[in-house]
Amino acid sequence: MENQKKKNNRYKNTKKPTENRNVVQDSVEKKEGKQPAGKRMTGGGIKKPYSKKKTTKKDLKMPVKITFLGGLNEIGKNMTMIEYGNDAIIVDCGMTFPDSEMLGIDVVIPDFTTVIQNKDRIKGIVLTHGHEDHIGGLPFLLKEVNLPLYGSKLTLALVESKLKEHGLDKKAKMHVVSEGQTTRFGKISVEYIHVNHSIPDALALAIKTPTGVIVHTGDFKIDSTPISGDIIDLSRFGALGNDGVLALLCDSTNVERPGYTPSERVVGESLTGLFRKAEKKRIIVATFSTNLHRIQQIMDAAVKEHRHVALSGRSMINVVNIASELGYLKMPKNLLVDIEKINNYPKSRMIIVTTGSQGEPMSALTRMASSEHKQVEVGEGDYIIISATPIPGNEKSVSRVVNDLMNRGCNVVYEKMYDVHTSGHACQEELKIIHSLVKPKFFIPVHGEQRHLRKHAMLAKSMGMKDKDILISDIGQVVALTQTKMSVVGTAPAGKVLVDGLGVGDIGTYVLKDRQHLSQDGIIVIAATIDKYTGDIVSGPCVESKGFVYMKESEDLIEEIREMTEAIIFDCFKGHTHEWKMMRKRIKDDIAKKVFQKTKRSPIIVPIIMSD
Amino acid sequence: MENQKKKNNRYKNTKKPTENRNVVQDSVEKKEGKQPAGKRMTGGGIKKPYSKKKTTKKDLKMPVKITFLGGLNEIGKNMTMIEYGNDAIIVDCGMTFPDSEMLGIDVVIPDFTTVIQNKDRIKGIVLTHGHEDHIGGLPFLLKEVNLPLYGSKLTLALVESKLKEHGLDKKAKMHVVSEGQTTRFGKISVEYIHVNHSIPDALALAIKTPTGVIVHTGDFKIDSTPISGDIIDLSRFGALGNDGVLALLCDSTNVERPGYTPSERVVGESLTGLFRKAEKKRIIVATFSTNLHRIQQIMDAAVKEHRHVALSGRSMINVVNIASELGYLKMPKNLLVDIEKINNYPKSRMIIVTTGSQGEPMSALTRMASSEHKQVEVGEGDYIIISATPIPGNEKSVSRVVNDLMNRGCNVVYEKMYDVHTSGHACQEELKIIHSLVKPKFFIPVHGEQRHLRKHAMLAKSMGMKDKDILISDIGQVVALTQTKMSVVGTAPAGKVLVDGLGVGDIGTYVLKDRQHLSQDGIIVIAATIDKYTGDIVSGPCVESKGFVYMKESEDLIEEIREMTEAIIFDCFKGHTHEWKMMRKRIKDDIAKKVFQKTKRSPIIVPIIMSD
Repeated sequence: MENQKKKNNRYKNTKKPTENRNVVQDSVEKKEGKQPAGKRMTGGGIKKPYSKKKTTKKDLKMPVKITFLGGLNEIGKNMTMIEYGNDAIIVDCGMTFPDSEMLGIDVVIPDFTTVIQNKDRIKGIVLTHGHEDHIGGLPFLLKEVNLPLYGSKLTLALVESKLKEHGLDKKAKMHVVSEGQTTRFGKISVEYIHVNHSIPDALALAIKTPTGVIVHTGDFKIDSTPISGDIIDLSRFGALGNDGVLALLCDSTNVERPGYTPSERVVGESLTGLFRKAEKKRIIVATFSTNLHRIQQIMDAAVKEHRHVALSGRSMINVVNIASELGYLKMPKNLLVDIEKINNYPKSRMIIVTTGSQGEPMSALTRMASSEHKQVEVGEGDYIIISATPIPGNEKSVSRVVNDLMNRGCNVVYEKMYDVHTSGHACQEELKIIHSLVKPKFFIPVHGEQRHLRKHAMLAKSMGMKDKDILISDIGQVVALTQTKMSVVGTAPAGKVLVDGLGVGDIGTYVLKDRQHLSQDGIIVIAATIDKYTGDIVSGPCVESKGFVYMKESEDLIEEIREMTEAIIFDCFKGHTHEWKMMRKRIKDDIAKKVFQKTKRSPIIVPIIMSD
Repeated sequence: MENQKKKNNRYKNTKKPTENRNVVQDSVEKKEGKQPAGKRMTGGGIKKPYSKKKTTKKDLKMPVKITFLGGLNEIGKNMTMIEYGNDAIIVDCGMTFPDSEMLGIDVVIPDFTTVIQNKDRIKGIVLTHGHEDHIGGLPFLLKEVNLPLYGSKLTLALVESKLKEHGLDKKAKMHVVSEGQTTRFGKISVEYIHVNHSIPDALALAIKTPTGVIVHTGDFKIDSTPISGDIIDLSRFGALGNDGVLALLCDSTNVERPGYTPSERVVGESLTGLFRKAEKKRIIVATFSTNLHRIQQIMDAAVKEHRHVALSGRSMINVVNIASELGYLKMPKNLLVDIEKINNYPKSRMIIVTTGSQGEPMSALTRMASSEHKQVEVGEGDYIIISATPIPGNEKSVSRVVNDLMNRGCNVVYEKMYDVHTSGHACQEELKIIHSLVKPKFFIPVHGEQRHLRKHAMLAKSMGMKDKDILISDIGQVVALTQTKMSVVGTAPAGKVLVDGLGVGDIGTYVLKDRQHLSQDGIIVIAATIDKYTGDIVSGPCVESKGFVYMKESEDLIEEIREMTEAIIFDCFKGHTHEWKMMRKRIKDDIAKKVFQKTKRSPIIVPIIMSD
């Protein structure tokens, strides 16, 4: 307990947020925003330094409100609204992939109701980095409200490419920002801080309001030997902490892992070693297309080993093209070879960098494994490295691809044995460093399921924070922060909006339940036309089934269903039950019972009884 | 290379199988088979010692044939036929769970064609242990052929309970065997060897034929400090190896893991520590019902901590009952408390042992997490330990249960942080010990996917075995072993037989494809009756959909489909296309096209066009 108290004191010694309201812009606007690459992006977005505007007493009393629209109690679709008075910003707008019970759903996005309702107050969407779980919701949001976007050069280039697919790129208002810079959004200003992550140009945010500073880490890790750029700007986190931080919103993805996340450079060394082991074989490396540090290291090793590099997979080609144009990838001319031309080179001189590290059904690596890839036929001459870890839920599909590749005689190297992957997220010791630098008054863990948020809260507590200063929040909660108090003050519409084809949000519980039911037992349709006066059957009953039994092998059962239907119709008319609803119900119930009794299966029964 | 050669020599130094044909029964029949527990089990099954029967020259030349019916290139449904001349035995008869694309399937069992075809030659089914992937297929097989079963006391007790559910227990011929004992099956005899595993009473097999001995490890690990019984009988493996082993069939489940699998005792120590940490809270431990060593340790710790134990989950209650009756679980009277009566005891005095460690949807722990458990309402007063690791594919469902429990305020302890589970399978160093003791002439890795079989082959190679003496086989392959040669000599029917309700094998590719399609996009049924002479529409078109859109919100689209159908029917009759097949095809194709264009979804279209 002694120890605990001492730790608590550390927080008490820091200046209170109130004391340095006018200090926060000390280091802002160090750099000018670099000019953006895409022609639709408009530079800078910097307004006058925030300190020059007078803040009234009334301002000081206003709480900062944080509304979580995604990323809490779930992995992915990160989205947060931060408000001060009449000004608001959105941090990130991600998507996520459907759970296994969301049958037929393509992607899941946040509920944008709150954003649409507040569109006039929202001054901009600030993006921390270019991963799908932070930018993937944008096309769907921008169709509703065309808010200006702020993000680093690479982030916005990836956003632009995504918006182009939806025909939205021409309208979008994009403002390139860079680390060290500050952007004003009315009474809120945002300072961008360099962090390390598994995509270049990732930013943390210091969101400054008259009430205090909120530090939002975005996704990050501490990489002391990064592949490009510097180590995460720890000193800036420290300076902010010394000046006083009202609240920390911190990435919780890896909070269950003790220790440190290894540097990306470790992977490069492993890959180089493996490339040598491959000897005369063709090397195929599967990794995430946005992991440009990884791809850079593969390219560097390729140069050393005198191999060419070919790219496979739509997103791999797209991202590498964008990144090379913007200077995020450095490679000698002639290193890259078109995938169509790989057969002009000996296998021992090729490296193919491909998508499919998660065993995605239509991905390039999966197509190679099932011999459906147009240009790449794999076999004993291939040395394949899966440079990624299966995201929870993908274990089986990755395993299947590994098995299929091995069945074709390929050498396959994957996670369990070699350092072929490292995470982009901070482990426990790194998180502790951020906590100790930022020394926040309040802490809200973000980016994680309940288990992660809980563990992160425990971590903060173990460092001396008090229970009352830590909040495990949830999407749909509105949290208000004053200089002395953090509390949940309301709720906002939030949830999972399902996208299926062109439909956004039109698939609800009913349809999903039907899909679930159909997937388990199939459907039986019974159609008949009845003379509405006599009750005579004019046509049918005709029985069709899908996903239930193979019809040809179940003729007896089908015939029995037909006869039962006839009997029920006859019976209903005999008893003058002209209640068609009743008749339909009887057909449904009686046939369901019969089918279950005969098969122990419960298909959906759809009677279509028409009259002439 | 030097080193490699030296290792090779080790194998060469062993006596060839030919030299000790008549030595193999040295240690057989040490013990008499204990009398079985169940009244339907008939004792022993021991025949005359095999050495007393003269083997002719012709016998000596006959190859041993091994037919793999399950467990290779897959996890689960282990089943192998081993033949010598006119005698054959089956080793294990397991089941497995369906892959994610096998929608609506309950369980998957081996193809029994080969067994049925050879039923007169098969002298018995030998069971290594009582896990579902080794015994789960039995009810389905015994319905076809009532072959005698041989297994340890616990194994057969679990089999009996399973057969009872299928009404097959009365007919079954069960023979209890125990470690050290040998059973004769014509010219084949089987010696049972004690191994450690995550269920008591697990056996490896030394299958002896005139051509040589085949050692089948079953599932095993090396546990030097087991909870009950002895360490695996390494000296017997060694003695067999010294006498000469023709082939080793060895468990490959954990071949990807370096080092050793920790002893079950380690888990007991961790659990005891955690129980103390739980202080005044109720403790709930989720684990596999067959992991009786784990359950014993929980009971022992409960006694120490002065807590009572209640059981939750059908299989937990069933297995614990069986095991206690047979003496596999030792506990003081009054330790067990009925789950209905837990509220008569303070929470601080209770431990609930429950199923659901894999997050199975209907399991007891999942019901607790979703507040649907009749007797157990969990909350802040509960300290929950998940004493298991997610089986690949179950990660997400386990994670969901953990999150739900935490959301209710429970303390949840799971794998990643504490030693709350250990595997029942041997890791690399343990496998090496078995290889070095058995010193087989030939090696066939079993129980694993391609990746495991490959790695196991590499492990054997690293120990000095030659490529030609190692076979990565597959289900459906018939492998012949002579004293000098191992080769694939044929194929046998083998595969995945899907069980859905009462249907065994009646769900094939067509139905599964339909289920897959239905699950993704649903179905649209269009019914109409036409006057077959005039082409006039007598009734309909009536449009019904399931799993496609919420009908009420898509009235326009449904109306459009109706009008299109009318137009197509009209058009077909105008052009005198009385080809109904053509008309159906046009309705199907045109409507599919229209629906895709409007929604980017592709539901199954079923036109039911009837005539009066």
